[in-house]
Amino acid sequence: MSFKLNPQLDADTQLVATLELCEVLLMNDSRYLWCILVPRLPDLRDFHDVPSAHKATFQAEIDRVSEVVAGLTNAYKMNVAALGNMVEQLHVHIIARHQGDAAWPGPVWGVGDAEPYEEAAADKLIAQLRDELTRS
Amino acid sequence: MSFKLNPQLDADTQLVATLELCEVLLMNDSRYLWCILVPRLPDLRDFHDVPSAHKATFQAEIDRVSEVVAGLTNAYKMNVAALGNMVEQLHVHIIARHQGDAAWPGPVWGVGDAEPYEEAAADKLIAQLRDELTRS
Repeated sequence: MSFKLNPQLDADTQLVATLELCEVLLMNDSRYLWCILVPRLPDLRDFHDVPSAHKATFQAEIDRVSEVVAGLTNAYKMNVAALGNMVEQLHVHIIARHQGDAAWPGPVWGVGDAEPYEEAAADKLIAQLRDELTRS
Repeated sequence: MSFKLNPQLDADTQLVATLELCEVLLMNDSRYLWCILVPRLPDLRDFHDVPSAHKATFQAEIDRVSEVVAGLTNAYKMNVAALGNMVEQLHVHIIARHQGDAAWPGPVWGVGDAEPYEEAAADKLIAQLRDELTRS
């Protein structure tokens, strides 16, 4: 079976960039700079399911996105997590956290309601992220 | 500065095993089989802070612990997360999740009160985990 992005992830996000292994998505919640990485391989559920041949790329892309998001936001702390209790397709949350943000110091999931981006703000942010991520 | 386990992590857990890079700790909460990996390197905060020379080992140890915990519990889903909003020393949560568990389908952090293990149960579980983790 070929890779197909989970419909819930598709609905909640916008595409930022297509890296060698992963799609980089922007969560439509302006309370945090929150990216999601999804390896473009079929039938992955758990973090440890990524095949050996792709592990190094997987980790490098997580690190790259985390560094870019941290740099753009001057994050106090980065949160990196593969949970997938609700959406089972393997996806890695990469979230910039700041002291006093909407969920601080707890995790972000299930806290309050998402605050969608204005279209122009999302476009600008996506362009910034893509520019940083595709810079060699 | 040399590595020293954060006192809060030390208080909340018991040592399971010392792998090449990480300490494997058991969270003292019998509601979930919940391990925590801590790389024995000083001054790490974020997932992306692990130095290049240690990245492959770091990922391999996360995968190994996740596979062992999944196998012992027949987990429905594994949760893998580096948050660190409260305890800043880099630590990776590896948690076996089951449909209907105490926090399902939400994340486990901040939900209800931990239910400490009976001493004998903890000893038995730690021995099982250590046995699996140190098997070649």
